[in-house]
Amino acid sequence: MEFTLEDISTQEFERRRALYGPLTESVRELIDAVIRTETDEDIIRDAHGQISSVVESLRAKQIDGAFGVRHTADLKGMPWGNAVIGLRNAVAPPLHTTRHDDGLITTDFTLGAAYEGPPGCVHGGVCAMILDHVLGQAGSADDVPCYTGTLTTKYLRPTPLGRLRAEAIIVNRDGRKKIVRGAISDASGETVTAEGVFIVPKDWAGVMPEAAGTPDP
Amino acid sequence: MEFTLEDISTQEFERRRALYGPLTESVRELIDAVIRTETDEDIIRDAHGQISSVVESLRAKQIDGAFGVRHTADLKGMPWGNAVIGLRNAVAPPLHTTRHDDGLITTDFTLGAAYEGPPGCVHGGVCAMILDHVLGQAGSADDVPCYTGTLTTKYLRPTPLGRLRAEAIIVNRDGRKKIVRGAISDASGETVTAEGVFIVPKDWAGVMPEAAGTPDP
Repeated sequence: MEFTLEDISTQEFERRRALYGPLTESVRELIDAVIRTETDEDIIRDAHGQISSVVESLRAKQIDGAFGVRHTADLKGMPWGNAVIGLRNAVAPPLHTTRHDDGLITTDFTLGAAYEGPPGCVHGGVCAMILDHVLGQAGSADDVPCYTGTLTTKYLRPTPLGRLRAEAIIVNRDGRKKIVRGAISDASGETVTAEGVFIVPKDWAGVMPEAAGTPDP
Repeated sequence: MEFTLEDISTQEFERRRALYGPLTESVRELIDAVIRTETDEDIIRDAHGQISSVVESLRAKQIDGAFGVRHTADLKGMPWGNAVIGLRNAVAPPLHTTRHDDGLITTDFTLGAAYEGPPGCVHGGVCAMILDHVLGQAGSADDVPCYTGTLTTKYLRPTPLGRLRAEAIIVNRDGRKKIVRGAISDASGETVTAEGVFIVPKDWAGVMPEAAGTPDP
């Protein structure tokens, strides 16, 4: 796994964000429209032709393989290919997370037709995906890097499509382990909860705070 | 949650599959191209305009809300909006699962740039999403319906993007609970394992087989 440094100015960073953000947003709209359309067959066939032609124009010059995780020289992150938060990845809802002073990570987001499992509800696997990401961010909110060991997701009731919130925080530390808890909620309360065990790499174990149960050192 | 019956002929079913399948596949290509393109700004802007115009044409007539889970009068399933297996859902890789005689569910699939987390690797949340789905299918492979109670995902090592396999099977039964185990593997072996506890609704409990550890009654 390698992280890529791109030595670009803030201006160039903003130019790219303004260019790729709206393009990706239009693809998110397209994904939704392809699921829900009831137009005539000839319009569907036209759409297919136009999309294939756009793909060809974009692929005329492209990177090999996946996007990777890039950052600027002043360490602004560009995880733009990421499946959950990626600015250039139309599979991502995308999540915009907020890190609070106490280490709590929160995110408010909307899931539409593209995230359906049971009728009208979010696919249970999508809930697990979102919780994996949010708990992972909470696990690293103390700036001690860690990777996911296990993630246990508990389904309390179906999660309706629509406006949702997720949050997570470190609740305990034990040696090289951090225990993180989180949940997805709708307007009526929690629908899915999760607990994750995150492991600090051996060469970082020395910087782990001693006290258990304190979200941030 | 409601399931929708569409009283259509086999011919009409096949016509729709042949119409929407390739359209969705072109959107999957587009998602990948938008992540990886390095073309000039004017081509990106053109692409954005063309996609928005396609969206408008498809939205001229569309269903309200999400696709739901539909089936034909002879019970052929059309889970075409599903986030993991949906024929019309470009967010879905999509997974094509096989149910074996012993209740084992297997699926071979390829994950590209759109499913990235760490550089060159599958997002851990995407692994959890896929395992949730495959374990869910395995849990219902004995034709006794059940819903996911808890899902525990254990990350053994990073999962590389590319060709992968997932499988799952019921390993135990206890009252109204079924225990299902599964894993994702690359060519070198397992990368993520999962165990799920699936709950049989009360009014179905009577049909649960008595013997534990037998994958199929």
